[in-house]
Amino acid sequence: MANEVEIEQEIVAQGDLVRQLKGDAAATEDAKKEAIDKLLRLKLAYKEITGKEYAAPGGRKQKEKKAAPEKKQEPKADGKKQTKLGIEISKDENYSEWYSQVITKAEMIEYYDVSGCYVLRPWSYAIWESIQSWFDSGIKKLGVKNCYFPMFVSNAALEREKTHIADFAPEVAWVTRAGSSEMAEPIAIRPTSETVMYPSYKKWVQSHRDLPIKLNQWCNVVRWEFKHPTPFLRTREFLWQEGHTAYAGPEEAEKEVFQILDLYAGRWEFKHPTPFLRTREFLWQEGHTAYAGPEEAEKEVFQILDLYAGVYTDLLAIPVVKGRKSEKEKFAGGDFTTTVEAYVPCNGRGIQGATSHHLGQNFSKMFDISFEDPVTGGKAYAWQNSWGLSTRTIGAMVMIHADDSGLVLPPRVAAIQAIILPVGITAQTTEEQRKHLMDTADELAKTLTDVDVRAEADLRENYSPGWKFNHWELKGVPIRLEVGPKDLAADQVTAVIRHSGRKIAIKRALLVDEIKRLLEEIHVEMYNKVLAARDAHMKVCYDFEEFKKLLDEKFILLSPFCGDIACEDEIKKASTRDEADAGAAQMGAKTLCIPLEQPKEVLPEKCLFPACTNKAKFFALFGRSY
Amino acid sequence: MANEVEIEQEIVAQGDLVRQLKGDAAATEDAKKEAIDKLLRLKLAYKEITGKEYAAPGGRKQKEKKAAPEKKQEPKADGKKQTKLGIEISKDENYSEWYSQVITKAEMIEYYDVSGCYVLRPWSYAIWESIQSWFDSGIKKLGVKNCYFPMFVSNAALEREKTHIADFAPEVAWVTRAGSSEMAEPIAIRPTSETVMYPSYKKWVQSHRDLPIKLNQWCNVVRWEFKHPTPFLRTREFLWQEGHTAYAGPEEAEKEVFQILDLYAGRWEFKHPTPFLRTREFLWQEGHTAYAGPEEAEKEVFQILDLYAGVYTDLLAIPVVKGRKSEKEKFAGGDFTTTVEAYVPCNGRGIQGATSHHLGQNFSKMFDISFEDPVTGGKAYAWQNSWGLSTRTIGAMVMIHADDSGLVLPPRVAAIQAIILPVGITAQTTEEQRKHLMDTADELAKTLTDVDVRAEADLRENYSPGWKFNHWELKGVPIRLEVGPKDLAADQVTAVIRHSGRKIAIKRALLVDEIKRLLEEIHVEMYNKVLAARDAHMKVCYDFEEFKKLLDEKFILLSPFCGDIACEDEIKKASTRDEADAGAAQMGAKTLCIPLEQPKEVLPEKCLFPACTNKAKFFALFGRSY
Repeated sequence: MANEVEIEQEIVAQGDLVRQLKGDAAATEDAKKEAIDKLLRLKLAYKEITGKEYAAPGGRKQKEKKAAPEKKQEPKADGKKQTKLGIEISKDENYSEWYSQVITKAEMIEYYDVSGCYVLRPWSYAIWESIQSWFDSGIKKLGVKNCYFPMFVSNAALEREKTHIADFAPEVAWVTRAGSSEMAEPIAIRPTSETVMYPSYKKWVQSHRDLPIKLNQWCNVVRWEFKHPTPFLRTREFLWQEGHTAYAGPEEAEKEVFQILDLYAGRWEFKHPTPFLRTREFLWQEGHTAYAGPEEAEKEVFQILDLYAGVYTDLLAIPVVKGRKSEKEKFAGGDFTTTVEAYVPCNGRGIQGATSHHLGQNFSKMFDISFEDPVTGGKAYAWQNSWGLSTRTIGAMVMIHADDSGLVLPPRVAAIQAIILPVGITAQTTEEQRKHLMDTADELAKTLTDVDVRAEADLRENYSPGWKFNHWELKGVPIRLEVGPKDLAADQVTAVIRHSGRKIAIKRALLVDEIKRLLEEIHVEMYNKVLAARDAHMKVCYDFEEFKKLLDEKFILLSPFCGDIACEDEIKKASTRDEADAGAAQMGAKTLCIPLEQPKEVLPEKCLFPACTNKAKFFALFGRSY
Repeated sequence: MANEVEIEQEIVAQGDLVRQLKGDAAATEDAKKEAIDKLLRLKLAYKEITGKEYAAPGGRKQKEKKAAPEKKQEPKADGKKQTKLGIEISKDENYSEWYSQVITKAEMIEYYDVSGCYVLRPWSYAIWESIQSWFDSGIKKLGVKNCYFPMFVSNAALEREKTHIADFAPEVAWVTRAGSSEMAEPIAIRPTSETVMYPSYKKWVQSHRDLPIKLNQWCNVVRWEFKHPTPFLRTREFLWQEGHTAYAGPEEAEKEVFQILDLYAGRWEFKHPTPFLRTREFLWQEGHTAYAGPEEAEKEVFQILDLYAGVYTDLLAIPVVKGRKSEKEKFAGGDFTTTVEAYVPCNGRGIQGATSHHLGQNFSKMFDISFEDPVTGGKAYAWQNSWGLSTRTIGAMVMIHADDSGLVLPPRVAAIQAIILPVGITAQTTEEQRKHLMDTADELAKTLTDVDVRAEADLRENYSPGWKFNHWELKGVPIRLEVGPKDLAADQVTAVIRHSGRKIAIKRALLVDEIKRLLEEIHVEMYNKVLAARDAHMKVCYDFEEFKKLLDEKFILLSPFCGDIACEDEIKKASTRDEADAGAAQMGAKTLCIPLEQPKEVLPEKCLFPACTNKAKFFALFGRSY
């Protein structure tokens, strides 16, 4: 086997060749490709031998240290971890490059040749499965049933509304061709399913006894690239709000259907595709329920909100603030929107976790989901909710928990909770000793899987322990269990905790109880770490100058607010600033939510914004946001 | 409350009004709509009062009997059931109308305004969930992991192959517009995911140690209407078969990618949309695995086939024949196709249940999924499988088990396994007695759900027991439990079995054990009923004249066959016939499969087809087929 130095020399030479060919107008594409392929193969060979990515001397990659892989996972004496082999850039240095490296190197995402679309590999899809299973069982207890509606929305109504097509629904993807034939009628792919589902709801509701309807679907939705966002949201919102009360005829109602699409489009404008966060196709669940009266419907909004909060707190180990959206930030098609909001410590931004909307009777009037009022005999409209949670959850989890060594998985959603590695096999190890180590690792895995701990032994003999340490660290497995000759002798295993780097020796006899306890402990510790970071950066603030200063210090702020859309616009504008050094505009603050649980401080009369003359109605949580 | 006769008179009068308005050029659309709405409301009221659909005197609906609903569920003395209230036509009379009524009236499907797309309501989606849960756990035990690939396929490669677009991929739906902007590059929606997934497989496989890859996804796929099927399949198949062995350059390989799409398109041609069976969008799972060697891959093909057989036999109570597809019927892109084939007794047709393909190295060569052979050091290609199971399963279940009274659900997939109805409440019943009945029904449901029987009590007071009997019969719930005053007095409940109509009194104390036993028994009985019907119509047959005669008598036939494509074409042609009386062509027979378990009869030398001079290679199972 070639040694490290030899391969390094080959890589340098091959790299030079590639650069030369790239600059050579006479070189064929095939020649370039062949040279690049060989370079990649060499780097791969390097990685297999050394357990680390090849790092070119000089340039950005020189941050990597050449210490032996076995030592890499040790925290430094000062408690700070050094930048690791896998991830070539730190979270603080270049956040978006770091994010991209974490999700690809942890094997969560594979990039794809349709822009804005990504492959969810098993390592991330397993998290989605955990969330699905937990949430699905939660909504089923509430009597919600799953179903599946088509992904296509007919163009029939649009055809009659040609004047609106031109500037409506800018993010809707249209199918216009089947095979080589143009379709008579283009059809849209759902950006969300109100227009898909509610015509059926109309059919199903004939009497108050047909209510409630409580349906949910797990599906994909598509929101296509919106290249030049224009600030039309306000206008539409205004039109919409007028639309709630009077419908002269079906044409008007239908017109509004597409205004809704437009609103969604406006809200979900596509700036830079980011896996999990801004994608053209994503997976979600969407619940759509209809009730005879408003009380039941409103009650459900908050039951669902609690489940959404649970996804974050109980599964993803992320604290959230439950609240209502402001008039500016709410879903314009509904009466009110509730939300769970998380905090991303490294950049101080808020991130919306999931929303549960009370639609009131807006949609039921538009779609004529109605019944005879059993008391008055008059026509009554259903009260509706809609609520959705998407794979965006996984993006939030990565941003909040992952570190410079890669992904950090909260134990309850980790596909593998404990990875077991035999270590300390050297040239001096006898075959018998080696086999004993392997068998022990395998037994440990069986012991743990028998009690429903998701454990695996990595017994591959072609990878060094160093390579494996880095690999599983990069993938964020909560507990690494090492079994070496010394552990065998002491009848113990060594556990290394991913999020803290802490090492613990565990007696074999106590293994099951201890691992179960550790998994719970890790969840709590991870949650508390984020909670502490957030609470250190969440502050009640009455003064706008202080507000702006704290925003720049990565705070989110609880400030008295009048609730007006115009005032929120002013706050956003006045808190936007140009960072001369970064050359990029720093976005303004918006309300993340109006927390359900208000601060215990007395609400002053004055709204946060200096020029605002309205009275403060509540404390709102403000912040820069995703 | 209006009585039955009064409402009937109102309906007749209102029906006359509607007909009059429809014929009146001067009548406004609103007036017509209002009249129709009123008519529908009257019919609904009729249904609520009487527990049955309103049947106009005269016309097709007059088959309905006016017996009291309570008696309707009783089998007649001759064992034949009478046509029931809900379903207005018998299975024998008009199969396709019957099918449509069963799936809509049982609330499985709602029709949708995009042709070929249907809403899967909770009642059918729950079956899909059962299948998912069972199959998913089966493949996870085999080490298969779930993932999610984008639904879009880039047009990039196609752009370079413009000459092929014109007649290729006739069933692929193309997205060409986002909002109001034409896209620079149209993108296709997956008809299946080979072209979506395998470029990633190429990236992931660098070494033999990266194999096997075992991925599965649960997703939707789209195959758009193919209005004028043309018989080009053979040609493509031929081109394809040549393509396996030599690839001069990437262009040729890419060309073939789209020939694959074309093949799929050809195989899945769209004639008449039918819910579950022929739909433009459907849900399925698709497994795609890659191995370093052929043995492991081939082994998996049959492991998956066993799981597919299990979906039918263990969940849906449908016997299947496991076999290989003939050269003519196999997936042309693979080395061989295995299948599970079911039999539909009422029309004697075979229906393909699910297929598991061994792709050999055809796709790995096309997509360059390769690695260095650890032994020879040469370039080696992966061995691949793909396998899929769709919501078509639900269609097969309906066709095979449902009867003239509606759906019949096999207990293991039934969303509700036992429905509990309080009965015998009359005007003479005291409030206390009524409450006692209601409470008892509720308690029974709790007792059963506590032991994981999916039970529900239907305590709605606005529906008569007759209405409820019909409703739950229509929906196919395996066991109806009635509790009336006599049952209370005797400390028992009365169970009525959906598929057989059998009535059994069960002592309260024995309820749990007895229901559990009954559910198992019903599964076995339903399975055996279909098995008996199939076995009575599956026969070894050596003579082509007898073969044709038996086909018309709804047989599927095990006949000696040479395996040749040309011979199978001849057999199909020679067994196609025009039914003068029916006015419709009766399709020819094709091979359903070459059963893995061959008949014990000695294989003769002569192939079934009289003019064929090839030797028979095996018994093939022939039949008319979906």
